[in-house]
Amino acid sequence: MSIHSVRRSQTHLSWSKSVPPVLTIASGDVVSFDCLDASNGQITASSGVADILVAKLAVMDQVNGPIYVQGAKVGDVLKVELMELTPAEWGWSALFPGFGLLADEFEGTALKLWSIQDGVATTTMRLRGSDVAVSVPVKPFMGEVGLARGAEGHWSTIPPYRTGGNMDTKHLTKGSTVYLPIEVDGALFAIGDGHAAQGDGEVCGTAIETPMRVTVRLTVLPASNTPPSMLAPHYESTNSVPVGEAYYTTMGIATDLREAARDAVRGMFGYLVSQHGFEREDAYILCSVAADLRLHEVVDMPNYLVGMMMPKSVLPVP
Amino acid sequence: MSIHSVRRSQTHLSWSKSVPPVLTIASGDVVSFDCLDASNGQITASSGVADILVAKLAVMDQVNGPIYVQGAKVGDVLKVELMELTPAEWGWSALFPGFGLLADEFEGTALKLWSIQDGVATTTMRLRGSDVAVSVPVKPFMGEVGLARGAEGHWSTIPPYRTGGNMDTKHLTKGSTVYLPIEVDGALFAIGDGHAAQGDGEVCGTAIETPMRVTVRLTVLPASNTPPSMLAPHYESTNSVPVGEAYYTTMGIATDLREAARDAVRGMFGYLVSQHGFEREDAYILCSVAADLRLHEVVDMPNYLVGMMMPKSVLPVP
Repeated sequence: MSIHSVRRSQTHLSWSKSVPPVLTIASGDVVSFDCLDASNGQITASSGVADILVAKLAVMDQVNGPIYVQGAKVGDVLKVELMELTPAEWGWSALFPGFGLLADEFEGTALKLWSIQDGVATTTMRLRGSDVAVSVPVKPFMGEVGLARGAEGHWSTIPPYRTGGNMDTKHLTKGSTVYLPIEVDGALFAIGDGHAAQGDGEVCGTAIETPMRVTVRLTVLPASNTPPSMLAPHYESTNSVPVGEAYYTTMGIATDLREAARDAVRGMFGYLVSQHGFEREDAYILCSVAADLRLHEVVDMPNYLVGMMMPKSVLPVP
Repeated sequence: MSIHSVRRSQTHLSWSKSVPPVLTIASGDVVSFDCLDASNGQITASSGVADILVAKLAVMDQVNGPIYVQGAKVGDVLKVELMELTPAEWGWSALFPGFGLLADEFEGTALKLWSIQDGVATTTMRLRGSDVAVSVPVKPFMGEVGLARGAEGHWSTIPPYRTGGNMDTKHLTKGSTVYLPIEVDGALFAIGDGHAAQGDGEVCGTAIETPMRVTVRLTVLPASNTPPSMLAPHYESTNSVPVGEAYYTTMGIATDLREAARDAVRGMFGYLVSQHGFEREDAYILCSVAADLRLHEVVDMPNYLVGMMMPKSVLPVP
């Protein structure tokens, strides 16, 4: 078993089998990556909202790699063990025009900077005219974990695909294992988009974005030893929420599942604004980085029901 | 504060302001309900699959009540504290034709009986030719918790509405509190559809259905003290899953959110069938009663990502 490393400059901007590997490893090897945040370094710990307005979207969501894994064949599965994740001491969340589940209702731009220390990310939000510290427990993970696609062409790193990519899945943290279907020989693995914390959904479009050092072990599983028709990645994880953690949840109920999800988010930021005094944009960002969207009911037609679950521990004491 | 009780025969089959109350109480009073299961007693602990075929859907999903709460006005909110829930010693899960998230792919009928004891529901499933006991932790809740609608007419108890109803939300268990927007004077509260356990989604269309004794406290909150525009119910709950509980998760990734949810379920029953040897229908039922659908990502367009998270503790040791 060898340990390899990938530098922060070794990135690319599309999932493609034509991107040359930066490294070739044996199955079972360990690789450490030094990753910039998803803005590709355009937003820093001293940025202001003006930096959001001029940020170039075309160079964002870069991924580090790709890694060619010897022996990986089309139809095999790549097992990715997430061994270590270390965020920087700062992070950011933002609203970009046109991006996010409620993009049509939040047309402005916003930037929120977080300091990250001792397992907690902290920012300042303005409640009823006073600055109040708001803290979110840090549960670091990588938004982007993926392989090159088998289809020809350069595929954007914004959406996730069957082969992974921008999955933005909060459960892919230290100790979790992801299984990615391999569509090209060598697998061509890449990773990026460090998140210090996020809720299920990432509803405003950003998490607590941060540079991240991440170490993974990559192992090829032969097709014979894996589920026969993987529609999408599988993963293993463990619960990290203590028994008794309290939640306040808003529901969305609608004939369209997406609209039910949107109503659940609308309900939560409405609650945060009316009952706690948050600014509307701050409340939307807090939904994205701390609250979980869960499909409570998807069978009682014609109405779907989605819940947005906010841990009370992140809300300021009234 | 008074304690009232509602008998198992005191039911009705629609949310309507024209259903006469079975009881009038003061705000803050406690009511105990003795509820039959959602089949309205048509399925029993000795039923076979033939009983599914002849069961009358028109009398299912009955709710006990309604309760007129004095002082409740249109625009107020009814606070429902779930104080005690006691399931029977048996339960059932079934596939009904045309019902469930994958109804088009599961056209047959199935019935699974569970025994409920010491906080665990147990059934037998056939794995690779052998009968194996499968157990699910009991977390009892009521699928139906709701109020009469303000709109004229008789509204089916199958879908949930803004005023609650068939929310099928697994988090509404003992100690949880639900807030329901009031659309008619007196609120007209009713409850039913006991579930011994269920995952987020209830994907096959049934949970572990069971008769239930349930006790609630009903309190009117004046409109001035509640969020100004409640699109749907809110609730408070606490996490009951211990740190370190392990999950196996399958993903669905698609341009349509519902199709992403369907792919996540397809992935999970495919995994249970191919890697654990479950029968296809049993695997689908296990998804419904034990696994959680969560919206991992809803912003990386054009692809939504839904995860179906199965606690490994409910899977038989290979």
